[in-house]
Amino acid sequence: MMKKSIAYLGPPGTNTEQAALKYDPEAHLIPFPSVAAVASAVDTGIAAEGVVPIENSLEGSVNDTLDLLIHESRLLICRELVLDIENHLLVRPGTSAAGLKVIYSHPQALAQSRRFIERCYPRAHVVAALSTAAAVEEMMTSTEPAAAVGNSRAAELYGAQVLARNIQDRSPNVTRFVVLAPEDHPSTGRDKTSLAFTFADDRPGLLHEVLGEFARHSINLAKIESRPSKEALGRDVFLIDLEGHREDRLISGVLERVKASTSFFKVMGSYPKYEVPS
Amino acid sequence: MMKKSIAYLGPPGTNTEQAALKYDPEAHLIPFPSVAAVASAVDTGIAAEGVVPIENSLEGSVNDTLDLLIHESRLLICRELVLDIENHLLVRPGTSAAGLKVIYSHPQALAQSRRFIERCYPRAHVVAALSTAAAVEEMMTSTEPAAAVGNSRAAELYGAQVLARNIQDRSPNVTRFVVLAPEDHPSTGRDKTSLAFTFADDRPGLLHEVLGEFARHSINLAKIESRPSKEALGRDVFLIDLEGHREDRLISGVLERVKASTSFFKVMGSYPKYEVPS
Repeated sequence: MMKKSIAYLGPPGTNTEQAALKYDPEAHLIPFPSVAAVASAVDTGIAAEGVVPIENSLEGSVNDTLDLLIHESRLLICRELVLDIENHLLVRPGTSAAGLKVIYSHPQALAQSRRFIERCYPRAHVVAALSTAAAVEEMMTSTEPAAAVGNSRAAELYGAQVLARNIQDRSPNVTRFVVLAPEDHPSTGRDKTSLAFTFADDRPGLLHEVLGEFARHSINLAKIESRPSKEALGRDVFLIDLEGHREDRLISGVLERVKASTSFFKVMGSYPKYEVPS
Repeated sequence: MMKKSIAYLGPPGTNTEQAALKYDPEAHLIPFPSVAAVASAVDTGIAAEGVVPIENSLEGSVNDTLDLLIHESRLLICRELVLDIENHLLVRPGTSAAGLKVIYSHPQALAQSRRFIERCYPRAHVVAALSTAAAVEEMMTSTEPAAAVGNSRAAELYGAQVLARNIQDRSPNVTRFVVLAPEDHPSTGRDKTSLAFTFADDRPGLLHEVLGEFARHSINLAKIESRPSKEALGRDVFLIDLEGHREDRLISGVLERVKASTSFFKVMGSYPKYEVPS
């Protein structure tokens, strides 16, 4: 049997790859260099699905993902994945903790580990990399005693050793990823639906009226966000995740009424609500 | 007369420095390495005010700024600043466009200029830096024919020359900064107020009720966002920017009523609405 191909925002060792592996450990994973390239791979059939970050990502492509879903692509969200991002201090096997001269990572992973680095390696030279995965790769070939801040997948992939675990300044960083596909997911009874819409004018109360539709039917909102639209400065795009499936009778009726009060309306997909594995 | 001291998220040449310069060209600007350090500088009186990014920043500290304002600091927002972030291709004066071997920048600035770089310099080696400012500094001392992606302030500061303007793939990136101070701004008649609040439970419709208070009084919302709270996974913090000043009679009455329906409520400041200079 052919393995399913899944495109993801690479290179190998990124947090997105970790999310894709967790989602389908059996799949054939193909790295792509940008969110747009992941979407193209799915559009052209190179991959059946694509995994990209959508919230709170180090990899800095969340705006790309939202722009793609709102404006550019017909792909839908068929799954959401939630990952605790853990930053470890990785070294070449056998490197001693004392005497590290250089620490490599993505600037945001470095910023998140600032207190640890200042406390333990105040004299280390901090060097930026394009991703935490690239940092681990560079560290492995460095000519100096070096470490990298990265995840355990990158450690495994590049043969690095974990010198210190969870060195980020705060509790783990939860990042949300989505799986994009030509179709979203059938109703499971425990679903979420992601919407994007715009009003024709900025009259106060329009959002309140829309939320009233949801409230009257006891539809819970998992997320709400307003984003400045690309086209007209000041006309916001509202992003809402609600609990329920777009094909559920109650939801589909409410969505019809909401759509009628908007100037732009898009369902970005319905998919099973992520459940923390027990 | 003593110049006013303003702390900002450095190093010199960052977009935050550009925002601070635009805000007060006469001030004595002091760079700090993190949002928390900027806040401490204001708290301890080293600086009268502090400038930090709050939305859509390359410098990746937006979460730090929001956490600080919501949970950690008593400082208030006294101003908002909006800046078009422009990425230019910068070189050492006299460097020819042909034959560039290396391009330095912050990973997100590189990602934003990907199409330009692929089209014009498909064979250049792309190297990450901790900030666009650090990239320009590294480029200036590189032993190879090199360029950096950075802003015009960094070009000025490090003596670089602009080889190509506005190389980002999309129209300019608008980033929002805030000025933090012990007090917010007196009412001007054209103000905004930033709020953060949480409900005691996740009952559908609570947000709708709050927005109803605003809608009934024709108070316009400039922004709404829900963020997962740090403490209890799933209990959201709502961030709202509304038009008006917290001391305006209408607004202060509405805020009292909203506060009564929340379990956590904080006014993060009232400040003049940013107007695009004409």
